[in-house]
Amino acid sequence: MREELIQAAERARRAALALANLGRREKDRAILAMADALEAREEDILKANALDMERGEREGLSPAVLDRLLLNPKRIREMASGLRHVASLPDPVGEVMEGWTLPNGLVVTKVRVPLGVMGVIYEARPNVTVDAAGLCVKSGNACLLRGSASAYNSNSVLARILDESGAAAGLPEGSVQLAPGTDHETAREMMRLHGYIDALIPRGGESLIRTVVEEAQVPVIETGIGNCHVYVDRAADLEKALRILVNAKTQRPAVCNAAETLLVHEAVARDFLPMAARALKERGVELRGCEKTRQILPEAKPATEEDWYREYLDLILAVKVVGSVQEAVEHINRYGSKHTEAIVTEDLSAARAFTQAVDSAALFVNASTRFTDGGEFGFGAEIGISTQKLHARGPMALKELTTYKYVVWGDGQVREG
Amino acid sequence: MREELIQAAERARRAALALANLGRREKDRAILAMADALEAREEDILKANALDMERGEREGLSPAVLDRLLLNPKRIREMASGLRHVASLPDPVGEVMEGWTLPNGLVVTKVRVPLGVMGVIYEARPNVTVDAAGLCVKSGNACLLRGSASAYNSNSVLARILDESGAAAGLPEGSVQLAPGTDHETAREMMRLHGYIDALIPRGGESLIRTVVEEAQVPVIETGIGNCHVYVDRAADLEKALRILVNAKTQRPAVCNAAETLLVHEAVARDFLPMAARALKERGVELRGCEKTRQILPEAKPATEEDWYREYLDLILAVKVVGSVQEAVEHINRYGSKHTEAIVTEDLSAARAFTQAVDSAALFVNASTRFTDGGEFGFGAEIGISTQKLHARGPMALKELTTYKYVVWGDGQVREG
Repeated sequence: MREELIQAAERARRAALALANLGRREKDRAILAMADALEAREEDILKANALDMERGEREGLSPAVLDRLLLNPKRIREMASGLRHVASLPDPVGEVMEGWTLPNGLVVTKVRVPLGVMGVIYEARPNVTVDAAGLCVKSGNACLLRGSASAYNSNSVLARILDESGAAAGLPEGSVQLAPGTDHETAREMMRLHGYIDALIPRGGESLIRTVVEEAQVPVIETGIGNCHVYVDRAADLEKALRILVNAKTQRPAVCNAAETLLVHEAVARDFLPMAARALKERGVELRGCEKTRQILPEAKPATEEDWYREYLDLILAVKVVGSVQEAVEHINRYGSKHTEAIVTEDLSAARAFTQAVDSAALFVNASTRFTDGGEFGFGAEIGISTQKLHARGPMALKELTTYKYVVWGDGQVREG
Repeated sequence: MREELIQAAERARRAALALANLGRREKDRAILAMADALEAREEDILKANALDMERGEREGLSPAVLDRLLLNPKRIREMASGLRHVASLPDPVGEVMEGWTLPNGLVVTKVRVPLGVMGVIYEARPNVTVDAAGLCVKSGNACLLRGSASAYNSNSVLARILDESGAAAGLPEGSVQLAPGTDHETAREMMRLHGYIDALIPRGGESLIRTVVEEAQVPVIETGIGNCHVYVDRAADLEKALRILVNAKTQRPAVCNAAETLLVHEAVARDFLPMAARALKERGVELRGCEKTRQILPEAKPATEEDWYREYLDLILAVKVVGSVQEAVEHINRYGSKHTEAIVTEDLSAARAFTQAVDSAALFVNASTRFTDGGEFGFGAEIGISTQKLHARGPMALKELTTYKYVVWGDGQVREG
C-alpha cells in the first residue's frame, strides 16, 4: 500500500513539474473539459454514488451525513459550474510580486509559482474532490486526494473522470489523483510523504486535525476549528448586536465560522441579554452562562471552564459578562481558536483596541462572523480556512495555493565579501 | 523539565500578545538598549564565553567549531552593531497589504502582524542568540531559543542581558528567552509545543533538520540544506562561467549557498572542463565526474549516484556533462535540495527555460549562487534560508517573521445565503 501511494506521489510530482509550466490558457481549457466531462458522465457518477448511499444506509450513517454524501443531477451540474467559475478566475501564477535592483546590478524578481503537490485529506462530501481538483489545477498544482471510505465509489469515479478529461485536454497525467486507500493508514502514510507533498490540508473534524498535527512530516495547513466569539461592547447599537449575534449563531450553526460564545459588556448586559435570550430561544438555542449571566438569565445553564473552549457546531451558545474590551480580548486570546471574532460597537477606540489586540485570522467590526469565507471575501472559491499563522490565515483560495521563487538576472556577478 | 519549558512558553505567549501591540518607536528603543547592554556587559559575556571555550577545548572540539564559539570584544561590538542596524530597518508590522470593499459594503483589510512566538533551534554560534532576538523583537515576535550545550554559558548570559535590558526599556518580560536545557530532549519538547510556538526554525545540519521534520508538531520552516548547481550552457560566455563557478564553489565552501555540482553542456564541455579543472585544482578542489567528464578529465574520480545528492560543504565538486538545458533542469529537480541554482548563458531562451522549470528558491542567470543571502538581497539581516515552499522561500528576514490578519469594517452586515 505504501508502495502504491509512493508511486502515486511520484506521478503527482512529475505532473506538478509539468503543470507549473502551463499557461492560463492550457489550464482553463482543461478545467472546462473537466466540467463538461462531469456532466457527460452523470450516469456513471450517479451509479457510483448509489453504491456509496446504499452502503451508508446499511451502515446506519446519520441523515445529515447521508445528505452530504448524496449526488444528484443538480449537484453534478453545480460541481461542473463551480469548475467553470474557477476557470474564469485570474491565474495567480507568474505574478511578479516584487522586484528590485541591487547595488551590484543584479535584478531580483520575486515570482509567484505553484506550491507543487498538494495533499488534501477530507471527509464525506464528494464535491470536495471536484472543488479541490479545480483549484489545484488552476493554481498549477498537482493534487493527491484522500477522501473518506463512505464516499469511495463516488470519489473514485469523479477523480478518474477529472484526471482523464484533464489529460485529454492537455494536462500531465497524474495531475488529479485519489490516494489508493481510504483507511486511516493511508492518511497516515500521506502525512509522512516528506519530499513528495509540498503542503497538506486536512479538512475535517478535530480528531483528524489532531492526528495530522501529531503525525505529519510534511508541511501542514491547519484548518477549520472555529471557536468564534461575538463581543457586544458597552457602546454597541443593541439592535445591530442582536441581528449580528442571531446570524452568527443560528444562520448555519454547524460550520466553523458560526459563533460559539457571546461576550457582553456588563454595562449593557441587563438590556441586551434578555433581548438576546428571547430571540435565540425562538430559534432553539441553548444558553450556558457565567455567574453574572445567570443572575440576569436564571434559565441559562451554568457554563463550565470547558464550555469556553468548545466548538459546539450546534444550537448552543456560551455567554459571559465581561467588564471591559480588554477582558473580552483576554478571554478570546485564551480560549479561542484564532479563527474569527466580531465586536459590535459604535466606539472607534474600542473597535481599534479589539481588532489590534485579538490574535485571530479575521476580525469583524459590526458584522457577522459568518463572512469568513472565500466566496464572501470575493476569492471566488475556497479550499479551506487556515487557523494557523504560517503561510496563510483565514480563507484560502488560489493565491494561498502558491509560493514564490526568486529569479535573479545578472551579468557575471560574483560575491566578494 | 517539560514543566519548566511550558512555563517559559507561556511567558513567551503572553509576551508575544503584548509585543504585537508595540509600535516601532518602542521596539527600536528596546533593541538599541539591548545593543548598549551587550557592550556595557562585555566582561560578563567574555567570562561566560571563556567557560564554554575551556570546556570545548577539554572536550576536543575542532578548531573550526571553537572559532565559531569564540566571542571577543570585536565580535561583541559586531553583535551590538547588528542590533543597531536591525533597529534602523523599517517595521514590517502594520502594513496594510491589501484591501477592498465587498458588494455588501464590508471593507476588508489585510494587515501584516507578527507570527507570535518563534522557536529557534541552533548550533554553536552564540551570535545567533543576538541576531534572532533582534529580528524577532523588531518584527514583534517573542522568541524561545535553544542553543547548543557547547555555547550554554555564552547563550545564557546573552539571553539574560537581552531580556533584562529589553524589559528595562519597555519590552514585556519574557520576550527573549533561552529554553531551559540544551539537550536533545529539550529540542524535542520544543518541537511538540503545539499551541505555544507559532513557527519553529531549525538552523543546523542535516540530522537536526531531519529530526525536526519527523518529530515537530508545531509549524516548521525547514532551512539550510543547499545542494546547489551551476549549469554552464552551450551558449555560455566561458570566462563568466569560470568566474561564477570558482566563486560559487570556493569563496566559502562550508555554507549552504556554495555550489556542489557543476552541470556542463556537452557542446562546451571539451573547452570548459579543462579550464575549470585547472582553476579549481589551484584552489584545492577535488572533482568527481560522470563518465563523459572523465573522458575529458581522466584525473577526476568517478561520481556515484550518491554524489549527485550530496551537500559536500567542502572543496569537492561533482561534475556531469548534459545534452541540453532540459537535461540540466531534470537533474536539478531530481537531485537538488530546492535551494539555489545558477545558469551561465548568453541565450535568453535557455535562461527563460531554466528559470521557469527549475523548482528552487533562487535561480541566478549569470551570477554566483553565493548571492542567496538576506544581506545580499538587501533585507538588512537574515534569520535563515527556507528550502520549503510553505510560508517563505529563500532568504528570510523581518517580513518572513510576520503573518497577516483580516480586519473587516462593517455597519451591521449579516449573511443571507
